[in-house]
Amino acid sequence: MTYERPGLRTMRGYTWGEQPQDSRTIKLNTNENPYPPSPQVQRALREFDVASLRRYPQPTADAFRDLVCEKHGVERDQVLATNGGDELLRLAFTTYLDAGDVYGTTEPSYSLYPVLAAIQGCREVTVPLRDDWSMADDIAAYFNTSNVKLLCLVNPHAPTGHLTATEQLARIAAEFRGVLLIDEAYVDFVDPNLHHHTVGLTREFDNVVLLRTLSKGYSLAGLRFGFAIGARNLIEPMLTKTRDSYNTDAVAQSLATAAYSDTEYARTTWERVRSERQRLSTALAARGFATPPSQTNFLLVTVPEAAGPAAELRTQLKTNGILVRHFDAPRLRDKLRITIGDSQQNDMLISVLDDIIAARNR
Amino acid sequence: MTYERPGLRTMRGYTWGEQPQDSRTIKLNTNENPYPPSPQVQRALREFDVASLRRYPQPTADAFRDLVCEKHGVERDQVLATNGGDELLRLAFTTYLDAGDVYGTTEPSYSLYPVLAAIQGCREVTVPLRDDWSMADDIAAYFNTSNVKLLCLVNPHAPTGHLTATEQLARIAAEFRGVLLIDEAYVDFVDPNLHHHTVGLTREFDNVVLLRTLSKGYSLAGLRFGFAIGARNLIEPMLTKTRDSYNTDAVAQSLATAAYSDTEYARTTWERVRSERQRLSTALAARGFATPPSQTNFLLVTVPEAAGPAAELRTQLKTNGILVRHFDAPRLRDKLRITIGDSQQNDMLISVLDDIIAARNR
Repeated sequence: MTYERPGLRTMRGYTWGEQPQDSRTIKLNTNENPYPPSPQVQRALREFDVASLRRYPQPTADAFRDLVCEKHGVERDQVLATNGGDELLRLAFTTYLDAGDVYGTTEPSYSLYPVLAAIQGCREVTVPLRDDWSMADDIAAYFNTSNVKLLCLVNPHAPTGHLTATEQLARIAAEFRGVLLIDEAYVDFVDPNLHHHTVGLTREFDNVVLLRTLSKGYSLAGLRFGFAIGARNLIEPMLTKTRDSYNTDAVAQSLATAAYSDTEYARTTWERVRSERQRLSTALAARGFATPPSQTNFLLVTVPEAAGPAAELRTQLKTNGILVRHFDAPRLRDKLRITIGDSQQNDMLISVLDDIIAARNR
Repeated sequence: MTYERPGLRTMRGYTWGEQPQDSRTIKLNTNENPYPPSPQVQRALREFDVASLRRYPQPTADAFRDLVCEKHGVERDQVLATNGGDELLRLAFTTYLDAGDVYGTTEPSYSLYPVLAAIQGCREVTVPLRDDWSMADDIAAYFNTSNVKLLCLVNPHAPTGHLTATEQLARIAAEFRGVLLIDEAYVDFVDPNLHHHTVGLTREFDNVVLLRTLSKGYSLAGLRFGFAIGARNLIEPMLTKTRDSYNTDAVAQSLATAAYSDTEYARTTWERVRSERQRLSTALAARGFATPPSQTNFLLVTVPEAAGPAAELRTQLKTNGILVRHFDAPRLRDKLRITIGDSQQNDMLISVLDDIIAARNR
């Protein structure tokens, strides 16, 4: 017999990218950082007092929150630590939306949002991005008209890599009447010359919450640690009501704090990713793959005819031990999302692509 | 401005027991195991490959699930690993209940259930326990009449320590028309001579799910690791739909697997807790504290007049560096819930109690 509530029966859960646990596969499919975490993480792990695990963790990860405050000039009650960025997204849906309420996002966008909406019984309203993946100027007005209560904008954008400037975000925040969640999972990879700073938005507006994660920028996808910086009134109900009481564990708190203390190390990985991003983008363009500018650690490339349909190319790459992501969705079907690997992985990708293209056009 | 949904505005979040992070306080307030985790946990931590953290964890903790299968003779699709037992409880509410639906429990019961119900917008129906904290025989019928869709029974019971036998649970499962969640957070501390085995219920009934946790029995409250064993049809929607995709992290999966592999060690802690439980219960009874039988790692004791009102005694103990739990709730106001500590902690508790009683009655 089925006991799940009716609204769940026909829904489909989130489809995650393949996660083979071997170390041979070249994984360019789930936007992991190709470089290991800071040596400080190793040290924190080695020094961790296992006996202390018999006790509950500090419930709100205050040591980590205080570090965020120090780095970003915010107060502790503007910060919430979460079990990965995913938990923060879930909390936003369960905190700000009742069943039947409407959330908004762009089309395309992160494929987890509609799953969370379905779980919460919410409706989705989307606005298509323009051809260059930028947002139209009137989207706040449109979402207001649609009575959207939570607007999720991933910026830099996934799966396209496009960056919306802070000024445009500020205009949206000012006009939009609901909660604006800016999902900054990839923000660490933005070119520092762009001077993209958004924390000020959380002081200026009472409806802005930023999502950050250590998964990508700090090479800790396996640890599940993210956080929110937001207006107090947005953080408070997630912190004191909807969050599981002990949502982050003691080991994760310790390792996350160690990693986030060592931004200097993390920055070296961001720089290498940006440098490889440029190199890979150029190499792909030379082979006919259209690659729009990306401020993330991935490229959304349009597969040229010579390389065959995108879904097929994905399968061929997999046969050669390289995983990339294909989305069977409007505007994305002819594209692949390719995570920036290290130089060796990127070289291998290009080499395998050359072989595939040569074989197809022989 | 307030953006949280209307249903949350007046609710209060879960009140957790105090979690001082110093090691001097004698913490008998949150039912932690007084003994450290297995040496295997230490080994797993030391051997953990930090570089692997750059990748996402195995999404469903399959190594851990397979271990559960091996120990309990169940199939993998009957097992779900969760970020602490709390996550499983939340998933049960979000998976089986729509807003407006009714969940049931006993009065008293674990104080997290009504919080989860409030978050999900559900109503609560409770049945009072009898004076000896046992359940009436007709509770399934009562909950059916009340159209309860999820019934949460904590067994052994919190905060009383009472154990309901498997046979009574089976009768309830057979008669009850919704999902029966048996919260077995404390089951490891049950006297083995009672031959209390419940996994068979998950094979016999398609509406039974068991909650287990490593927090208490495996001394890992700080790690946040729990799991469900249940009928396939109950596990499936939580596993594939309502759960966060990467709900348990790679370190926690590794340490939890190490701990759960070493039940032999854990059992030595259970035996010591049971032995101390008997000793503490006797010592408290000798001082006029009524202590009903407990099959958990805590005692719910009625504070005698000579020791003053329970809330006051709690404060006095705290002044002396000993934390215990007091619930300001019907039938519990004159009682304290005292976690079984190690022999030294229990001796200290008795000694401080003697001093307090002597001072009051001087």
